[in-house]
Order: sequence, then C-alpha cells, then structure tokens
Amino acid sequence: ESVISELGELFSEGDLVVDGGNSNYKETVRRGQMLAEKGIEFVDVGTSGGIWGLKEGYSMMVGGSETAVASLTPALKTLAPGDDIGWGHVGPNGSGHFVKMVHNGIEYGLMEAYAEGFEILKAKEEFGLDLHQISEIWRFGSVVRSWLLDLTANALADDADLSEIKGFVPDSGEGRWTVFEAIDLDIPAPIITHALFARFVSRQ
Amino acid sequence: ESVISELGELFSEGDLVVDGGNSNYKETVRRGQMLAEKGIEFVDVGTSGGIWGLKEGYSMMVGGSETAVASLTPALKTLAPGDDIGWGHVGPNGSGHFVKMVHNGIEYGLMEAYAEGFEILKAKEEFGLDLHQISEIWRFGSVVRSWLLDLTANALADDADLSEIKGFVPDSGEGRWTVFEAIDLDIPAPIITHALFARFVSRQ
Amino acid sequence: ESVISELGELFSEGDLVVDGGNSNYKETVRRGQMLAEKGIEFVDVGTSGGIWGLKEGYSMMVGGSETAVASLTPALKTLAPGDDIGWGHVGPNGSGHFVKMVHNGIEYGLMEAYAEGFEILKAKEEFGLDLHQISEIWRFGSVVRSWLLDLTANALADDADLSEIKGFVPDSGEGRWTVFEAIDLDIPAPIITHALFARFVSRQ
Amino acid sequence: ESVISELGELFSEGDLVVDGGNSNYKETVRRGQMLAEKGIEFVDVGTSGGIWGLKEGYSMMVGGSETAVASLTPALKTLAPGDDIGWGHVGPNGSGHFVKMVHNGIEYGLMEAYAEGFEILKAKEEFGLDLHQISEIWRFGSVVRSWLLDLTANALADDADLSEIKGFVPDSGEGRWTVFEAIDLDIPAPIITHALFARFVSRQ
Repeated sequence: ESVISELGELFSEGDLVVDGGNSNYKETVRRGQMLAEKGIEFVDVGTSGGIWGLKEGYSMMVGGSETAVASLTPALKTLAPGDDIGWGHVGPNGSGHFVKMVHNGIEYGLMEAYAEGFEILKAKEEFGLDLHQISEIWRFGSVVRSWLLDLTANALADDADLSEIKGFVPDSGEGRWTVFEAIDLDIPAPIITHALFARFVSRQ
Repeated sequence: ESVISELGELFSEGDLVVDGGNSNYKETVRRGQMLAEKGIEFVDVGTSGGIWGLKEGYSMMVGGSETAVASLTPALKTLAPGDDIGWGHVGPNGSGHFVKMVHNGIEYGLMEAYAEGFEILKAKEEFGLDLHQISEIWRFGSVVRSWLLDLTANALADDADLSEIKGFVPDSGEGRWTVFEAIDLDIPAPIITHALFARFVSRQ
Repeated sequence: ESVISELGELFSEGDLVVDGGNSNYKETVRRGQMLAEKGIEFVDVGTSGGIWGLKEGYSMMVGGSETAVASLTPALKTLAPGDDIGWGHVGPNGSGHFVKMVHNGIEYGLMEAYAEGFEILKAKEEFGLDLHQISEIWRFGSVVRSWLLDLTANALADDADLSEIKGFVPDSGEGRWTVFEAIDLDIPAPIITHALFARFVSRQ
Repeated sequence: ESVISELGELFSEGDLVVDGGNSNYKETVRRGQMLAEKGIEFVDVGTSGGIWGLKEGYSMMVGGSETAVASLTPALKTLAPGDDIGWGHVGPNGSGHFVKMVHNGIEYGLMEAYAEGFEILKAKEEFGLDLHQISEIWRFGSVVRSWLLDLTANALADDADLSEIKGFVPDSGEGRWTVFEAIDLDIPAPIITHALFARFVSRQ
C-alpha cells in the first residue's frame, strides 16, 4: 500500500501502473481512484498459472479503463497462452483482482473435493487401492480430469501423502476473502467455506 | 439384480460377466461371490466419460480377478483413450464400482465449487461481469481449468443459467452413496456432503 | 436382535414386550411386525434424561398400538417428570425410537453450537475471557440457556477443557443414523452432519 | 457512531456512558478509547433476554474498567435475574459486546439444530408425527430442553410452520460477525456458518 502511495509520487500524468499481484480488490478500487486523481492510469491483472505459467502462458483477468487496458494489450498477449485466449478485460479497476479472488476460492474447493475423495479411497482398506494409479486413470477420459488432478497425480507418484496435496493451493488470504465476500452478498458458499475450514483443522 | 440372478442360470462355468453400469459396490461384491460359486467370472467396470467417451475414449476403473481382467483387456484397450492410459485394474470385485462411486462424489464437489464461484461473480452486480467470458479466460492457463469447466463454458455460451450448469452431474445415487460410505468410514466429507445438500435445496 | 427373537419363544399371546433402549427404528418396525404375528404386543420407548432421569424423571417418546400403550401408561407416568408431561404416544411401532434418534441428532447439533462458541471465546486471547464465568452468566435470563448449558457450566467449573465438553453427548450411533435418514428424505441437515463430522475430526 | 461522537461533546470528565445495544465490538473498543481520552468512562453491556427480560431479568455481559463497572453495579443488579446471577464483568471495553456477539452466533446454531430436527420429523410422513406434541414431550426431562425449545413449542401450538420458528432469532448482523471473527481467528465454525447460510437460502 505505502509502496504504491509513495510510487504515486514518482509517477506523473499519463503514466500507467500495473498491479499483477494478489491484492484485495477493495484496496485496488481505492488505489485506482487515488491514481486517477493524479491522472495516472492503473490496471489490475489477476494472474493464474503459478510457476507453470512461464512455459504455458498465464491466465489473466484484467480490470481497468478501456484506454489503459488497450495500451497494456501487447504485453498481455505475450504473457497469455495465446493472443486471444486465456485473458480478458473483465471490468473496471478492482474487477480483475475480484475475479482472481473468486478463482482462488474455487481452487480451494476443487482441491478439497479431490482430497476428500482420496481420503475415502485410502480409508477403504479392504480394497487395498493404489491412489497414484487411480489418479492416473482419472487423468484420461474421465469427467473429473483437470489441471489440479494432474498436479495431484504427480505428487502421488512421489509417494506424497494427502496433506501435502492440499498444500498445492497457497493460503494467500484469498480463500477467506472469498468467504467474506459471499457472506456480504448473502450467497451461501458451503464448499468454499469448508475448504477454508479444512485448512484451519489441518493446522491445529 | 434379478436380471443377473436369472442370467446366472444362462451362463455356465468359464463364462465371463461384465457390469459396466453404476451399480452399488456392495451389491457388486455380493454378485461376484454368487457368480464365483458357479464358476462364472465377473468383472465390474466403473466407467466415466459420458456421451463424450465415444469419441475420446472412456476412463475405466476395473475390479475382478487377474485372469478375468486379463481376458477382458483387449476390449478395455479399445474403449480406453489409449492402450495404457485411462484404465486400470484397481482391485477385487466391487473395487471398480467403489472407485467410480467416489469419482462421482468428487464430480459433485467440483461442480458445486464452480457453481458457488459463478454465483458470487453474478451477485457482484457493480462489476457487471460476463460469466461466459470469465469461464473462457479460465479455460486456458489457469489452475482451475478442467473438463467440467469446458462444459460449463459451453453451457454459459448458450446463455444457460447456473442451475442448468449444476444439472450436468447426473443424480444417479452415487453422490449419496459416497456420503454414506464416508460416514461409515469415519471420514468427514463436508464438500461432497454439501454438494449433495445443494441438490436437495435446488429441488425444494 | 437375537435376544428378542429368542425371547419371542418365551412370550405367549397377550404378553407385552417393551424396548426402552436406543434401537434403530427400522429394526423396531420389523420386530413389532414379528411379535404381532405371534399375538405379542410391543412398545418402543425412546428415553431421554441420562443418569439425571432417575431424579428428575425421563422424557419418553412412545411408539405402539393404542391398547399396548394404554396398558403401559401407569409405568410411563411413574417414570415421567409428571403424570401428563414429558411423555407421549407419538405413533406406531418404530416412531418412538425414530423421534428419539432425531432428538439425539439435535443434541449433537446443540452441543457443537456451544462448543464452537466457546472455542471462539477462548481464541480471543486479548480479552482474557473466563469461559466458566460466561457459561454461568448465560444460564440465567439469556436466550441460549438450556440443560446442556447447565452441564457445560458444571464441566467448566472443574476446569475441563472443551474437548471434554463435547464428550457429554454419547456416540451411540444415533447421530449418524439421523444423517442417513435426512439424506434418505432429501432434507439438507448441515448442522447435525457437521456435529457428526466434528466427532470424526476429534478422534483422528 | 456519530451519535456517540456528538454526545461526546455533551459529556464531560467523570461522566459514564453505557452502550447496551448490539454494537460491533470493534467499534466499541474504538469508542472506549475515544471517550477515555476525554476522561469519560464507558461501559458496554451485551444484553440477552429479549422482550421476556422485562419479567425474568436480563442476562448481561459487561465490558469496561473496574471503576466504571463498579459504579454501574446497582443498575446491573436491578436488571439482572438476581443480584449475583445472570450478569458479570467479563473484561475490558468491547468484551461485553464480543461475548454477546458469540452468544448470538450460538443462538443461530441452536435454533437451526432444532429446525433441522423438526424438518426430518415432518418429512417422515409414514409416522404422521405431531411436531407440537413432540416439542412438548422434549420440554420436560429431555437433554434437549431449553429456552429456545420453549419458544418453539409455543409457536408450534399456534400451528406455525417451521420457517416462522427460525424467525425467532433476529438477523441483527451478529451472526455474520461471529463467522467473520471465527475465520479471523482460524477457528472452523461450521455449525454457526451453516445456520447463517440457512438464512440466506430461506430468503432467496
């Protein structure tokens, strides 16, 4: 916060500031207004892809004015998986970080759905199931195939236990922000909430 | 049940019976024993892939004896996405249907995680978000990309509302079987349970 | 089961059998039919009150035919807190145990609601709250006052920690039966389900 | 807020301000500091009992300094169910409203536990259960007896349906504050959270 506030001093009218981190969208809205008052353009880019993004391109949700996003478009096309895929201008300042926040909430839920399933398979001792084998079977042709399942299969290959698997999803605070937002909007969100609670339990 | 019981009369020693449906694994275990007493081989094949399996191959979780599965292997390779991918012999009779049951429980959880996320995005009216656009952004490069997200994006393109999206996942009874099994095994499974409850609520 | 089945041999037409335990209501329905075929009357009495019932009287939910319950009425009045309070004929055989089962499910939920509240109070270290003092304050005049709160206050007086408090509610299997029943009836029951899951977690 | 801020102008050193409402405890902490700077004493009194408190006395959780609470003690004894029961000095400014907030969170959970139980009883049509009769049976001798059950029984006597019963517990915002606080403290609180979500669902 103070960084941008101070940087605000360094920038001058017509400059463009980009926040590609996991900022809270409410702060992003506020920063956008603060910078706009100084005539400085601001774009928030919610970025998904982790360390794999370097190779495969990043999925980017972009918030800001038409003109600001237009001037950033060449850079976005370079970072995205393709010129016209994996990125988009979703709305005004703050909306990029908002959509990324919800994306992370979903990620928590997906990961916990797999974790529960593997827990049940593991607990069914009489069948002597091989969790890694099953994760590999599901990776091809099944309706539960996904990028997170690919990661899970890799981890299970190294004989990782299930608690490590949950650890894929970083606890960057966006999970709890998503729950706060859902409650503020009167939307029941039990899956995402329990994925968050499962983190608390695993830490206790 | 009575079908197989009657069919049991038709089969004779050395025959091989295959159940590729969504049977309850407990019945499958029982049937396997019943048929084994008559010298009839039995293989249960949990099959995922839906109508898309015809084109892309099916993901198959196979339960049965080594010899029975061996004699079925040519057929399995033909139906699978590849000779050695997307299928596997996971354990004795019943284990194929058990793993498929848990697979469906996970599917419920995944679908509901997306549904909650899109509900939150939709409720945030001040940003005027386009749910279809966001689903497309996430399909490429993001960590929440998956086969179910592809289906969701297709549905949102046709202007489907969110309740239709949840409808992808058929309520074949396997969701509630998964919850029963989790409770029998003393495994807390809040995500899958709430995905099931969300069905109840949407029907009320 | 076998006990009653064998006892069935001992009883003869016109006798009255009473089951005051925590039997599964489905078995009770079956037993009632089995005994009825032999002309033996059967009454199921769901009984609440624990060790305190001896002094205060038991709360009793009674299932059976009009005539059978009528002949048991003198005994029920003696055991109840009063002649016409704390007991009732709720329906046919099985309904007494069914209502008692749901009663226990509610008990799980109530206990866990208190447990969560006290956990939050305890975690708020900056206020240095005295859990026993607060439980005593709430016992008089507050809208959360209850018999279970009285028990909780007693336990906290002995410096019990919160895990002991949850232990009040015996895990007699009726909690999970209630969840199974809710799912069979398509009723979402998140509170009772999570109270059950909390047991699983505390045991892990 | 502005009221107290303005009132601050009216008060002078040595005065005592009391907030007996359902303020957010964070604001209470802030107000206490603001008033302390002006030499004005401040006491926050979390008050439970509703309209019945007039007759039965209120349950009061009191936050503030020793001296401030001491000077308020005569009034507290008058309002409480008894001189030394149903009220207590729980900690510094803010703690009275904090404990009351958690009290309301518990209230949500208790009410929803009963609501779920009665929903299951109602759905079991084959037994033709009388919900009012059962609520009365449970009021005497059972371990689920409570003040909220007394209210529920009264409502069921008037043939109220279950949605009305949930309406006992006012949605004063303290339910969601409790969930926010639990998440901030890393405490999983599924019962209270689902009691809150059940409100959202019933409003949709």
